[in-house]
Amino acid sequence: MAIATHRSSAPQSSRRTSAPSLAVVGVTGAVGQEFLAVLAQRRFPYSSIKMLASARSAGKEVTFQDRTYKVEELTEASFRGIDIALFSAGGSISKKFAPVAVEAGTIVVDNSSAFRQTPGIPLVVPEVNADALTTAGIKLGQGAIVANPNCSTIIALVPVTPLHRAAGVHRMVVSTYQAASGAGYAAMLELEQQARDVLAGKPAQCKLFKQQYAFNLFSHNSALGPNGYNEEEMKLVHETYKIWGYFAGTGSSVQVDPFSLPGAPRISATCVRVPVMRAHAESINLTFNKPLSEDEARQILAQAPGVSIIDDRANNTFPTPLDATGKDDVYVGRLRRDLSQDGNWGLNLFVCGDQLRKGAALNAVQIAELLLK
Amino acid sequence: MAIATHRSSAPQSSRRTSAPSLAVVGVTGAVGQEFLAVLAQRRFPYSSIKMLASARSAGKEVTFQDRTYKVEELTEASFRGIDIALFSAGGSISKKFAPVAVEAGTIVVDNSSAFRQTPGIPLVVPEVNADALTTAGIKLGQGAIVANPNCSTIIALVPVTPLHRAAGVHRMVVSTYQAASGAGYAAMLELEQQARDVLAGKPAQCKLFKQQYAFNLFSHNSALGPNGYNEEEMKLVHETYKIWGYFAGTGSSVQVDPFSLPGAPRISATCVRVPVMRAHAESINLTFNKPLSEDEARQILAQAPGVSIIDDRANNTFPTPLDATGKDDVYVGRLRRDLSQDGNWGLNLFVCGDQLRKGAALNAVQIAELLLK
Repeated sequence: MAIATHRSSAPQSSRRTSAPSLAVVGVTGAVGQEFLAVLAQRRFPYSSIKMLASARSAGKEVTFQDRTYKVEELTEASFRGIDIALFSAGGSISKKFAPVAVEAGTIVVDNSSAFRQTPGIPLVVPEVNADALTTAGIKLGQGAIVANPNCSTIIALVPVTPLHRAAGVHRMVVSTYQAASGAGYAAMLELEQQARDVLAGKPAQCKLFKQQYAFNLFSHNSALGPNGYNEEEMKLVHETYKIWGYFAGTGSSVQVDPFSLPGAPRISATCVRVPVMRAHAESINLTFNKPLSEDEARQILAQAPGVSIIDDRANNTFPTPLDATGKDDVYVGRLRRDLSQDGNWGLNLFVCGDQLRKGAALNAVQIAELLLK
Repeated sequence: MAIATHRSSAPQSSRRTSAPSLAVVGVTGAVGQEFLAVLAQRRFPYSSIKMLASARSAGKEVTFQDRTYKVEELTEASFRGIDIALFSAGGSISKKFAPVAVEAGTIVVDNSSAFRQTPGIPLVVPEVNADALTTAGIKLGQGAIVANPNCSTIIALVPVTPLHRAAGVHRMVVSTYQAASGAGYAAMLELEQQARDVLAGKPAQCKLFKQQYAFNLFSHNSALGPNGYNEEEMKLVHETYKIWGYFAGTGSSVQVDPFSLPGAPRISATCVRVPVMRAHAESINLTFNKPLSEDEARQILAQAPGVSIIDDRANNTFPTPLDATGKDDVYVGRLRRDLSQDGNWGLNLFVCGDQLRKGAALNAVQIAELLLK
């Protein structure tokens, strides 16, 4: 897909003074509802807001800043006059409607994976690569797509990027502990219902996931490639490369051999779903290109945007998913020199971040905020 | 502690023909109950069995092979005439009573960490180092202590050892997903009660653990050392060294610098408790001393004792804690070449094992079975 298809040919508007008109696509979903919560909490300026969802949800009511809105059916005509649309309705909806929105002059901030590896479409974590928006020439008034990265990738990169900038990540081995919310409301409800059933001595009903989720865990439910890695794991690899600039703006949706990219970090991930509602945890093992002591890393993280440190060894107090739930920051703890590497060449850390917020809605709204600057 | 204190001076008995007399110490605990289940299931031969616990539990009744036994209070006189005692009543009870049992001519198979690093006391995973019993000269009729390793260590080493034998583990990075049972019945009950309360909209009551466990997870609750690693993580390091023979039979309870042991693997662990009842999972990343392909590793694991492979990529079917619950084997899946290492120098795998069985009671009973041979 060429860059041109994602830009409208509409003339660039003069510098805007009014608040933008917004649309939320997939507003009845878990991320859609979080879009509204985050927009309200951050007092995001807007002149109007349109609530969009599938025909099935059209007519439902949603509340935003004490006003009730009727959900409208998403159609090709939905984007007329919309400046910014926040999409979270799955990849196929994004593929169909994001280009339509772009033609209407809308900037789409897309939470799906549909365009993340498309050349020319920036993949943005504001704390990491806000400049990618400028490089791609994204400006309010000109239709374009900006991709919101995968939740696990965002939550890893907010704390790891400042360490990468200081010492260069040579290798990153990640094991995730991922919450239900990444698979939507239905997954959260399935976890809850299964827990009720199991506690009542009844069998767990498996609908969305094929195996019991309550009081259990399982390898991430995304499809596996021929290399034995699932899509979630490969997103962590490929999205990190794009966000850190190793694709040099060209991107690629094909599988990349990390050894073909000069100087690129080597990344290996194991993604696992655990019976937690809405915040992910990740155990991250790093090898650097030059030594970085635990103390230096701690100082860097203490100043890193979007990072909070919880690392109290005496009281055994470290980040948990519940600490991160409903919070904006990525919480970091268990920071320690890796015993399995010489000197200060390696570190371990444990991070938690709210999947619906920083892993999805908050990051997208932060991107929208950058567009207003 | 010198070897001599763990051997009775009683003369060696002639080759035994009768079944041994048994005692179970801590019989009312989660592992104690599992000792009975495993002994019954494996038709372990015995002439008598004594059920021992603290004064608090004395007088309670336990059932074993359709017979009811009264629990007796553990005292210094408990071990007269006992050939084998299975201990799981915590480290302080082991420290106090195991030497007493040894003096009485009993072989103690101890599930606590009290003697694991004591020189001369073998630390045994039967599939891995059964020969350590012979080397230490352990024989039925002579009092001695045999230590049962930590659950996470056993569950990792059953599948990793055959790979280590084939290609030599140079480095192992482990992230665990540990069940409640490792902290005993009380932890399992706390998880269950918290889940009930949370589902009822009530606050979770934290008693054993200081933070909410249901629908959450947290860094392992054992104490942290000055290096930032908790005891569970260091057990995985030190016990692996001892079991794999890098202490050359001398052992050490002091903290070992892995770089001081020639050729020893470098191990880094992150131990996390997840809201699962009784089976642990571990994400294991390996670097070898010589290349080992995924196919070679798969063939080795297919023939490895105590290992079952569940690794169906097409159907996204891999080991889960519930698959391992109540089972003897360690389940292995997600076997794949590590993308972050050159060629075939590294592998990822994901393993699940029942914490109460292979992680504790089964391994101890298997040790007792070796004593009968």
